[in-house]
Amino acid sequence: MSKTNSGRFFEDYTVGDVIRHAVPRTVAEGERALYTALYPQRFALHSSDAFALWCGLDGSPMDDLITFHTVFGKTVPDISLNAVANLGYAEGRFLQPVFPGDTLRSESQVIGVKQNSNGKSGVVWVRTTGINQSDEAVLSYVRWVMVRKKDAAAPAPDTVIPDLTDAVSPTDLVVPEGLNFDDYDFGLAGEPHRASDYAIEERIDHVDGVTIEEAEHMLATRLWQNTAKVHFDATHREDGKRLIYGGHIISLARALSFNGLANAQCIAAINGGAHVNPCFAGDTVRAWSEVLDRADLAPGIAALRLRLVATRGAAFALRDENGKYLPEVLLDLDYWALMPA
Amino acid sequence: MSKTNSGRFFEDYTVGDVIRHAVPRTVAEGERALYTALYPQRFALHSSDAFALWCGLDGSPMDDLITFHTVFGKTVPDISLNAVANLGYAEGRFLQPVFPGDTLRSESQVIGVKQNSNGKSGVVWVRTTGINQSDEAVLSYVRWVMVRKKDAAAPAPDTVIPDLTDAVSPTDLVVPEGLNFDDYDFGLAGEPHRASDYAIEERIDHVDGVTIEEAEHMLATRLWQNTAKVHFDATHREDGKRLIYGGHIISLARALSFNGLANAQCIAAINGGAHVNPCFAGDTVRAWSEVLDRADLAPGIAALRLRLVATRGAAFALRDENGKYLPEVLLDLDYWALMPA
Amino acid sequence: MSKTNSGRFFEDYTVGDVIRHAVPRTVAEGERALYTALYPQRFALHSSDAFALWCGLDGSPMDDLITFHTVFGKTVPDISLNAVANLGYAEGRFLQPVFPGDTLRSESQVIGVKQNSNGKSGVVWVRTTGINQSDEAVLSYVRWVMVRKKDAAAPAPDTVIPDLTDAVSPTDLVVPEGLNFDDYDFGLAGEPHRASDYAIEERIDHVDGVTIEEAEHMLATRLWQNTAKVHFDATHREDGKRLIYGGHIISLARALSFNGLANAQCIAAINGGAHVNPCFAGDTVRAWSEVLDRADLAPGIAALRLRLVATRGAAFALRDENGKYLPEVLLDLDYWALMPA
Repeated sequence: MSKTNSGRFFEDYTVGDVIRHAVPRTVAEGERALYTALYPQRFALHSSDAFALWCGLDGSPMDDLITFHTVFGKTVPDISLNAVANLGYAEGRFLQPVFPGDTLRSESQVIGVKQNSNGKSGVVWVRTTGINQSDEAVLSYVRWVMVRKKDAAAPAPDTVIPDLTDAVSPTDLVVPEGLNFDDYDFGLAGEPHRASDYAIEERIDHVDGVTIEEAEHMLATRLWQNTAKVHFDATHREDGKRLIYGGHIISLARALSFNGLANAQCIAAINGGAHVNPCFAGDTVRAWSEVLDRADLAPGIAALRLRLVATRGAAFALRDENGKYLPEVLLDLDYWALMPA
Repeated sequence: MSKTNSGRFFEDYTVGDVIRHAVPRTVAEGERALYTALYPQRFALHSSDAFALWCGLDGSPMDDLITFHTVFGKTVPDISLNAVANLGYAEGRFLQPVFPGDTLRSESQVIGVKQNSNGKSGVVWVRTTGINQSDEAVLSYVRWVMVRKKDAAAPAPDTVIPDLTDAVSPTDLVVPEGLNFDDYDFGLAGEPHRASDYAIEERIDHVDGVTIEEAEHMLATRLWQNTAKVHFDATHREDGKRLIYGGHIISLARALSFNGLANAQCIAAINGGAHVNPCFAGDTVRAWSEVLDRADLAPGIAALRLRLVATRGAAFALRDENGKYLPEVLLDLDYWALMPA
Repeated sequence: MSKTNSGRFFEDYTVGDVIRHAVPRTVAEGERALYTALYPQRFALHSSDAFALWCGLDGSPMDDLITFHTVFGKTVPDISLNAVANLGYAEGRFLQPVFPGDTLRSESQVIGVKQNSNGKSGVVWVRTTGINQSDEAVLSYVRWVMVRKKDAAAPAPDTVIPDLTDAVSPTDLVVPEGLNFDDYDFGLAGEPHRASDYAIEERIDHVDGVTIEEAEHMLATRLWQNTAKVHFDATHREDGKRLIYGGHIISLARALSFNGLANAQCIAAINGGAHVNPCFAGDTVRAWSEVLDRADLAPGIAALRLRLVATRGAAFALRDENGKYLPEVLLDLDYWALMPA
């Protein structure tokens, strides 16, 4: 018997199954420092223990995307090793902060399957939960991928398409326990803008660009213990390129969004997201945001719903006249961020 | 109103103004490990908690240049985003060690302004202070930069040129509290040479060379949350090159200087420094030092005043017959280091 | 007198001499995170404090190869700065785990010398011990290198060739204090295979490949404070290539071996190893293993003796019909790993 894991194929997923993913991972100061070295991360809450204490927390929590990448990375061997495409995210909710020293593991429940009409592949929906060493959920999100069948003759399962919300309701957003912005120092945070200073439909060019090197995205992707070979093996594609992990672009764009959204301290939810075009080393990534919605959550704390777009081109690029994403657009992410009201 | 910071222009600086820089930053074991990965750092006091305990400290302090880069990085958005040139440093003093877990922030006071005769730019002098979570100063230095005017018609301010010392006086050097070299283990430190073994005007070739990759200098520069776009964006210059942060060369040269100066454990002061020529990925950096002065500070503790030169070429390169820096010279730094007397 | 260390030459080694190597080094969470970023490391015991607690330890120990590289790196300035070739390893034993915050130093005893017939170089055998801050040995191994003579006319020493075992006896393998696999969670560890599921002579293709970048191997090699200039200086070789530190390949191959050996949690011994061919940036490294032996060590704990081969080519490549290593083979390592019985 082969000792290695060849991954699951479409016919290996049954609605209701729960998959416990290997390998639990402790994240600490090292991951935090590397995150800052890999992405131009400057949000004060994730940069400074002192600032986090002023905001009512016990110390600086790990960047929310460290949590996301760590939880996501564990699912790769079980969910997307034989995936043809990463189709979407929904209902992502950050349920409590992760602090240095916490250990994360992941579980996924299969919540939907739909065989493609070609009979060779199908779409699988899973709800993944990130769990800490106290067995508390820290993150939950839905993801759907297209997966190959191993045996095209395997019978098609009954189609189950989960009912997913377009966006997490503000009432479902979790404010980390203790968090308050009563003594918030806008000067040290980097910008003066409160949530109420942003208009719906306002668009923000985050200005800076970052050119990506192969070594950087591979260091990052390994850091999350994401094993998808397309990211590491230059012999995998005929053109010798290594496909950059989509989450790397999410982190780059989110970090760049500090310019104009410096007070959007935490990600509270990921409503949806699409990796629109592949990104490769040598690309220079820029980002822009659009304010989609705003909600008051607690005294002094509001949430902005934001579209975050990463692009290889100029700001505000998105779709052509036919509604098709422009070729320079890399990411279209819809999320809720917490900030001073 | 634009939400992003377009930086200050020459006319935005007034002598006496104090600028509080964003974002406070906690530095810890992660930054220390990355520093060792990025630079060939081997000084025992910054490498080993055990060695630091033998030297009377509570543990290994962060490398002095981690402190410098972190404090410096915070000033970039306010001081040098629109800078044409980084002209010099003076009166840099390390006032107390930074330990893992400390949080650093920066403040700068404008201490001089002088409009250039072309009316399009001017020189701004600031005294920057690095401050820890207990509001204690850990570092102070003067830096001056040439900054563009936004409006060439803006009136020229009264010229104020600060009176700066050529070198920090030995009596102004701070020996970290508790530091002593009474039980100093020269064998474990790597070399047998005390301060008294060095002759004034002695020159030391540090022998090794390090070829720089794009990924490395960008990881480093992001780690210090330095946002100057010339370091990250390959589309910024017409030749597609990314300019390497001058501080990266300081750290490389200082780390290389272990070969011959292994006991120069701490940097106590930066007397002056010039980034003589730009450095780019692919360059192989070497370093050499010249002993400029020596002073006894406390029982068993002396300081060496050192010129540290980084070069793309052979050792001892510096200036041509006209006194002009040779094109292969990258850095000419003048600093005081503490070592066993 | 030159202040820099030009390294030892063959005639500088005398059997019986003990060399204390500089510089002691504290390893902590930062080194752990970087190790994960540099290598596709997923072994649960080294990834998770929680998993390590379930296995009876006080927390997750540093990866055994972090210990090896750190101890090895310190020996370079004294042992291999003038080495022509790194000839072999033997009798490597991991004597106790290293935990975050421990400080490591190295000592080597010269145990053999043999001048080559050409009179220009010779082979030196040393037994190196890694020692923690409590003066306890954590690692011991024998290494032999070919070193140039400085003065070809120096008299040849009496030949002493140490008597080395082919493989560490299972009775000499150390099980870390407290380690037990009684509540071992194979699901979270990533694979269901116990030691008893592996057959002697079974071969395992670890499947994935990793293409190496210059920045990555230099970050790694600096992290271990290994100063050998061939790894860093593109001007050192005529072809401009930087030779990749052999230990980088060991770590890559060991990390890749997770696919099929996920439960081989710790390295207990290194029986031997050869860096068969040099590796350069751009190479895509794969790995395969062969089970050489198996031994029960303690209730529930067994050891597998494994050949681990790193290759630039397909799995199971090793030697040609004349017994010569194939040109694509990079590493042939023989080690003992601990796993659930």
